[in-house]
Amino acid sequence: MPQDDDVTAFDAATAVERAEGGGLVTRLDPGWDVGGGILNGGYLLSVAGRAAVLESPHDHPVAVSASYLRAPAAGPASLSVVPGTAGRTLAHSMVTLSDAGGPALVVQATTATLTGEPSDYAEPMPDVPPVEECFSVAEHRHLAPPGVHVPGLSLKVDTRLDVATAGWAFGQPSGEPVLRAWMRFADGREPDPLALLTFADALPPTSFAMGNTGWAPTVQLQVLVRALPAPGWCFVEARSSQIAGGWVDEDYRIWDSTGRLVAQSRQLARAPR
Amino acid sequence: MPQDDDVTAFDAATAVERAEGGGLVTRLDPGWDVGGGILNGGYLLSVAGRAAVLESPHDHPVAVSASYLRAPAAGPASLSVVPGTAGRTLAHSMVTLSDAGGPALVVQATTATLTGEPSDYAEPMPDVPPVEECFSVAEHRHLAPPGVHVPGLSLKVDTRLDVATAGWAFGQPSGEPVLRAWMRFADGREPDPLALLTFADALPPTSFAMGNTGWAPTVQLQVLVRALPAPGWCFVEARSSQIAGGWVDEDYRIWDSTGRLVAQSRQLARAPR
Repeated sequence: MPQDDDVTAFDAATAVERAEGGGLVTRLDPGWDVGGGILNGGYLLSVAGRAAVLESPHDHPVAVSASYLRAPAAGPASLSVVPGTAGRTLAHSMVTLSDAGGPALVVQATTATLTGEPSDYAEPMPDVPPVEECFSVAEHRHLAPPGVHVPGLSLKVDTRLDVATAGWAFGQPSGEPVLRAWMRFADGREPDPLALLTFADALPPTSFAMGNTGWAPTVQLQVLVRALPAPGWCFVEARSSQIAGGWVDEDYRIWDSTGRLVAQSRQLARAPR
Repeated sequence: MPQDDDVTAFDAATAVERAEGGGLVTRLDPGWDVGGGILNGGYLLSVAGRAAVLESPHDHPVAVSASYLRAPAAGPASLSVVPGTAGRTLAHSMVTLSDAGGPALVVQATTATLTGEPSDYAEPMPDVPPVEECFSVAEHRHLAPPGVHVPGLSLKVDTRLDVATAGWAFGQPSGEPVLRAWMRFADGREPDPLALLTFADALPPTSFAMGNTGWAPTVQLQVLVRALPAPGWCFVEARSSQIAGGWVDEDYRIWDSTGRLVAQSRQLARAPR
């Protein structure tokens, strides 16, 4: 656990500052990669979400939709936030994250202030295995089959796969495009709405469970943050409904340690060959 | 069925033209309302999607995310399309729909060209009742309980509710936030990707099935179009996972007449009081 006055890895890697002369700047951290120098799309969304909150009267991103124009390089990047309508309940804005090569990510952000109110209605959380019975991705990096790059991301986000969905790591893919895992930051930093934006894209592609370990670049990703997560592990499920014509969807549901649904996301990605 | 050289109601109401001196214009049709002069969010998204396709090298919207800033008035409106990156497979753009009061809808659009390729993987369609056993919303307008406005939309989009999810129309809400219906345009215009953008927001709010017939204004809506729909009826399911803190999600899945998943959507809306 970090000491109180330490900055956690996530907060350092997603820090956004006001530049002299206006505008916002950040420094994209190469440690949040998914292989080949490609930064994780959820990590980039957390950076954009932090910029949206910084320029909003509200505290939390509740709905963010991102188009991934191109993969930005690690290093200095700038953020522009164009405000939309704003009211007592919510505010809209448009965030563009650019590196030296130009815009990389365009995000529509809705911010609001989430409370701890109980649900009026909630689908129950599915039965999940205890975390100690799950498969640690970080502890098994050396087992990665040829061609599977274990991403830097997996050192930042401690990911414990439900063994029922981890067969692909042992050459025995389940044949169903579903992955489930307990997840938390490796340094113990507790989850919050900005963290959920990263968690919503932090599992391997669901196609891994189909025996295809190619890259599935995100085209467009929407994340809804539904509640403030309680401290502790989050449980994350990714599921695809259809793989067709070179496209795949990934649907995430994230519950906190109390079993509350705290986030939902859906992305369209290019299916790996 | 319209004659070949007629323009269908949907194509007329979503027509987008190049204005003299540049830019795109449309005329928002008051007939696509959900009550109180409020135009349906899916209808507005179809207009924006048509503008995106018009300015794209590709034929179909495959991923669109819209932030609903304010409800635009029926009548003249303008559209601006700012291109993002574009390639052989897909193109990104940003569409803003504005009326005299300013921007109403901001949409991130990804366009591509969908083909008739069969799926590599697809979740099976659920068992659904035959259309002739379903409940016609248009034919039962006069039965609407006090306070329920039957929208003009329901005259444009022929909606046949699965009676298992139509109890609210008879004062017997199911208590589960799920609605299911067969859907097609009333004039027989066949479905296509632009039509699916309307269908993805054309059911009543799922909170109707909880016995709450208040309005649930859309805050942000993402639609993924997964395949070209076959002619005939589409089957549309809307489901909420959580109602909490004044927010509700609505998740749509749309299958065509052959049982193929052709669209998915998710929106965050304000829960009715």
